[in-house]
Amino acid sequence: MIKVGIIGATGYAGGELARLLLQRDDVDIVWFGSKSYVDQKYTSIYQNMYQMTDAVCKTDDMEELAELADVIFTATPQGFCASAVNEGILEKTKVIDLSADFRIKDVGVYETWYKISHAAPQLIEEAVYGLPEINREKIKGARLIANPGCYPTCSFLSIYPLVKEGMIDVSTLIIDAKSGTSGAGRGAKVNNLYCEVNESIKAYGVAGHRHTPEIEEQLSYAAGEPVVLNFTPHLVPMDRGILITAYASLKKKVTTEELLEIYRWYYEDEFFVRVLPNDVCPETRWVKGSNFVDVNVKADPRTNRVIMMGAMDNMVKGAAGQAIQNMNLMFGLPEDKGLRLMPMFP
Amino acid sequence: MIKVGIIGATGYAGGELARLLLQRDDVDIVWFGSKSYVDQKYTSIYQNMYQMTDAVCKTDDMEELAELADVIFTATPQGFCASAVNEGILEKTKVIDLSADFRIKDVGVYETWYKISHAAPQLIEEAVYGLPEINREKIKGARLIANPGCYPTCSFLSIYPLVKEGMIDVSTLIIDAKSGTSGAGRGAKVNNLYCEVNESIKAYGVAGHRHTPEIEEQLSYAAGEPVVLNFTPHLVPMDRGILITAYASLKKKVTTEELLEIYRWYYEDEFFVRVLPNDVCPETRWVKGSNFVDVNVKADPRTNRVIMMGAMDNMVKGAAGQAIQNMNLMFGLPEDKGLRLMPMFP
Amino acid sequence: MIKVGIIGATGYAGGELARLLLQRDDVDIVWFGSKSYVDQKYTSIYQNMYQMTDAVCKTDDMEELAELADVIFTATPQGFCASAVNEGILEKTKVIDLSADFRIKDVGVYETWYKISHAAPQLIEEAVYGLPEINREKIKGARLIANPGCYPTCSFLSIYPLVKEGMIDVSTLIIDAKSGTSGAGRGAKVNNLYCEVNESIKAYGVAGHRHTPEIEEQLSYAAGEPVVLNFTPHLVPMDRGILITAYASLKKKVTTEELLEIYRWYYEDEFFVRVLPNDVCPETRWVKGSNFVDVNVKADPRTNRVIMMGAMDNMVKGAAGQAIQNMNLMFGLPEDKGLRLMPMFP
Amino acid sequence: MIKVGIIGATGYAGGELARLLLQRDDVDIVWFGSKSYVDQKYTSIYQNMYQMTDAVCKTDDMEELAELADVIFTATPQGFCASAVNEGILEKTKVIDLSADFRIKDVGVYETWYKISHAAPQLIEEAVYGLPEINREKIKGARLIANPGCYPTCSFLSIYPLVKEGMIDVSTLIIDAKSGTSGAGRGAKVNNLYCEVNESIKAYGVAGHRHTPEIEEQLSYAAGEPVVLNFTPHLVPMDRGILITAYASLKKKVTTEELLEIYRWYYEDEFFVRVLPNDVCPETRWVKGSNFVDVNVKADPRTNRVIMMGAMDNMVKGAAGQAIQNMNLMFGLPEDKGLRLMPMFP
Repeated sequence: MIKVGIIGATGYAGGELARLLLQRDDVDIVWFGSKSYVDQKYTSIYQNMYQMTDAVCKTDDMEELAELADVIFTATPQGFCASAVNEGILEKTKVIDLSADFRIKDVGVYETWYKISHAAPQLIEEAVYGLPEINREKIKGARLIANPGCYPTCSFLSIYPLVKEGMIDVSTLIIDAKSGTSGAGRGAKVNNLYCEVNESIKAYGVAGHRHTPEIEEQLSYAAGEPVVLNFTPHLVPMDRGILITAYASLKKKVTTEELLEIYRWYYEDEFFVRVLPNDVCPETRWVKGSNFVDVNVKADPRTNRVIMMGAMDNMVKGAAGQAIQNMNLMFGLPEDKGLRLMPMFP
Repeated sequence: MIKVGIIGATGYAGGELARLLLQRDDVDIVWFGSKSYVDQKYTSIYQNMYQMTDAVCKTDDMEELAELADVIFTATPQGFCASAVNEGILEKTKVIDLSADFRIKDVGVYETWYKISHAAPQLIEEAVYGLPEINREKIKGARLIANPGCYPTCSFLSIYPLVKEGMIDVSTLIIDAKSGTSGAGRGAKVNNLYCEVNESIKAYGVAGHRHTPEIEEQLSYAAGEPVVLNFTPHLVPMDRGILITAYASLKKKVTTEELLEIYRWYYEDEFFVRVLPNDVCPETRWVKGSNFVDVNVKADPRTNRVIMMGAMDNMVKGAAGQAIQNMNLMFGLPEDKGLRLMPMFP
Repeated sequence: MIKVGIIGATGYAGGELARLLLQRDDVDIVWFGSKSYVDQKYTSIYQNMYQMTDAVCKTDDMEELAELADVIFTATPQGFCASAVNEGILEKTKVIDLSADFRIKDVGVYETWYKISHAAPQLIEEAVYGLPEINREKIKGARLIANPGCYPTCSFLSIYPLVKEGMIDVSTLIIDAKSGTSGAGRGAKVNNLYCEVNESIKAYGVAGHRHTPEIEEQLSYAAGEPVVLNFTPHLVPMDRGILITAYASLKKKVTTEELLEIYRWYYEDEFFVRVLPNDVCPETRWVKGSNFVDVNVKADPRTNRVIMMGAMDNMVKGAAGQAIQNMNLMFGLPEDKGLRLMPMFP
Repeated sequence: MIKVGIIGATGYAGGELARLLLQRDDVDIVWFGSKSYVDQKYTSIYQNMYQMTDAVCKTDDMEELAELADVIFTATPQGFCASAVNEGILEKTKVIDLSADFRIKDVGVYETWYKISHAAPQLIEEAVYGLPEINREKIKGARLIANPGCYPTCSFLSIYPLVKEGMIDVSTLIIDAKSGTSGAGRGAKVNNLYCEVNESIKAYGVAGHRHTPEIEEQLSYAAGEPVVLNFTPHLVPMDRGILITAYASLKKKVTTEELLEIYRWYYEDEFFVRVLPNDVCPETRWVKGSNFVDVNVKADPRTNRVIMMGAMDNMVKGAAGQAIQNMNLMFGLPEDKGLRLMPMFP
């Protein structure tokens, strides 16, 4: 039985962790940490789990939790994990951080984009970027996982094969992303009210969204050269889902089918990445509630560009599902344990 | 391994059956029957199940299917099952009919409300109304199950304890129901287009909806007297979910707490019926994707009425989930096998 | 030129007032009052009106505003208008209060349901309940208008003819109401976030919603006897719209067509009340953005009840539109001036 | 009184034309043409206009209509107008075609992208591309207007100033577009059902959407050189609205503010184009129901690209509103007559 603690259990990502882990019989959630709801019954906040647990919300005291848990998930705002984790904690327990604190290796880049100073720079080097499709082996031995951001996960997996194979001119990369509203979190803000989001679409964080350097860093590793790109997220009136539409110039003339062959080869053994048939565009409805990323590409001979597309559930593969995938790897379990969830439609 | 055939597999209820059953390792779907998509890959229609099955759609030939399957689900329009099932088929296989064909014992009532003549009246008597919370034992031995309608399931479970206990004057019963749009099916009709349903609510089938006699019949059994009531369904701009708000006059002065005690007692051992805490109203978001029915009641001393409420996922407990619950019982399996799904939120 | 002041101009109802009045050339909005946005540009809050006004938000100082305005709209929380209005203000300007402060004649009833003490009980008697279809003549001469609640407006107009004509047993009246989310206001509350409201429906305020006594009072006048009823509102995942489904027992056997005749006769000269053809149910999509209320009825011979239905835009006829209708009457203008808005679909 | 005929009056664009024109007192709609609903009351199809007209749907006989109408709007599928219009008709009446038939000057390009042969190539030269912000003077004297497509209108107005001023390298232009579902029309297709569109986003027509050559042609005129670009539309779960996010490389280093100056200068006198303040992104909610296009730009010094954004209501400025704007110009009326509609929010 793996003893799990969740800090930030009352946010959307924390709630999704709880939902997925409560369905497992090899996991025991020993701590539902919260900032705003301490001492309240957890299921009074997430009534979907009513009768599935009697737990009462606890604090976000990571020191105390480290004594109890085999693994701690921090689904918390930027800065929390860096300020709370330390060598002592990591000697007692594993930590999977769903915030951005340990995703970026260059602390200066982190501090520039996130506008906070990093409280634990000495742990950045050790932290493993928890994208199993790329870092599977490193994850298995890690103590501290930087769980990837939602946009970066979907962006990276949609683009990676062509960057890695050197098919595209990375200086031309543009990522136009669209996300459901759960990505905005559960904070009570006017801009996230039903009537503000419904029946509308907008770009936000244009030329300045904080997931940009994370995507650039990971793609740079794949490219073997620095990648600087445009990333524009949009808010879509739906609960869940991320769609990536990425554009880049091809280095040589190739067909869609040739590009697809590369994707199929790269993802042949990846259960959670589904390369769609030629001409079938990814749609977020087909991955809702699952850990899948659906990807596809289209070459445009008129412009000699390729359009790369990916769809994913931001709450699952973009947050809680991927975190559990990492946990499975860290504990020597089958990577897909508890994650073979069939997407729910409609 | 239970060999399952689904006729009507390309409708929404059929798709939900496939989605739930493909996640089980003790079930093999041997037949995805369809009318419109014969010979097409099933996952080209329900791309959420891409790579989860290679099946190609077959016809709706129940005779042929009966040779192959241990159980057949018919998720088909009214009249199909009655015209296709027969003694020979029932000798070879079990049938769980998700249509209304065998739900109503009085064939005249069926023919009046459904405006079709019944093709197999001789099988009506044998068919068991597949509401496990009421007919569990009968279901275990049945060959032919009439899987309850979505509205009737939620209505009945929300009202049943007070009718059974004689707490309410059944002549005053009014059921105001609200359903998500998946209940309208996947047929290409202008009225179900996105722009027609979105941003609107309407009543339909006022004083004439065909689920009315089904609800009346089942409540009559509980009441021990004929129940005639008003049932008004409404179409809500959401995918899934049914909410029942029912009204009746109390026979004597009682408190909400006293009424809740009755519910708790009735549903104490029913995993899928969750009696909510006092003053917590059922909401469809808390049951989405699960087989739960959340119920609650409120006594109004000003009018001496009780308001009974229930929320449910129409695709799961209102269709595919309940059908599987019935299958589990018929095959001697744990009733909740494959159905301990935690509701997905958001 | 009518000089108008709006207090609470940054709420949804206040925003709708501004939107409708800025389109008129006989009205000048001299004051956009706010509590949270003082000194900010009004169109930075409601960007839909960008370039339509340069106004900056002012305070909610009603004394100062009374010096400038011919009429003041208070689109404010309960209690504000009662505490801010006084004889001096009413000698200088007219007041149309969109809150509940002056809707209920019995101050004890008000204080019981609203749980605040009334700060200006001496003005209650003078205030006119601003439902033009009923109180047209009184409105013309009024200084202080209690603009009706959204639910009461739609409920009353849907039910009124049959109550007035004595066709129904008022002791059996049940109103099941459904509202879009703009009715919940623009306050930053978790419960009104997009992901909480979307894909869900729930009842709220069961047996205790504060619009209940307002509906009862107005129907009591029509009935000539006290009316006590059940009123259950529901929150629907859409921006605008209220749908009323009301039930009552008929005093004698009548047909739907006979009941419709009564509606047609009552509303023959009412431009804003549209009696739909037999068997056409009101739907909120058909009234969105307009000042119309669409009504219809259905007699059920099985239960001898009538189902009364009404659909309306809660922001227009349920708030700002009706307030302007009242203003038009008070200033001797055509009642429909600026309000002949065709419903927007889709 | 302008006598107007609408062919395709029962589609969404036709319905919007009727809605906007029925509110004018200088226009008389003499013909509601339809293919599927001949002889049915128009308001039985668009119940929002109930009691606003008694009209009954007529055929799509353009010859007969030409005898009656001063102007004919064809809101019809591709190919209809080209096959129905001729010199005789244009001698009797003006024609504003909302389809693509006369938008593209090169008939070969039209036939390649639309995959139909053009039935009236001799009229292409005469037809005026009805984008008033560019072709105002030509429109005034035109007999035949090619009303621009929804995507092209929003794309062009969002990008035009920078292309015209030679600020961007047009070979790098990428347009990522998002549209509400009304753009998909009112045809009964499974893909446009509520449950298929809701809670999902997808790209479609990738590298092949038929609005591509229209955008390219108009931008080529502005650029003075051929423009070839990528245009990727996406379907968004909302009724109305188009959002454009366009990317291009800047020819030299400029600031956002410098670029904004260009926009302000170009659109200074254009009532319907609103250049937003620096850092305020266009959102479709702020233009819903109006004829406005909200635009903004952002320079990204990291990549030396500019992101150009525009939001518009596809039913109004993208179809019916722009068609009426053209009609106003053709009849010597104020261009904004009947179109000073304040966007409706929420």
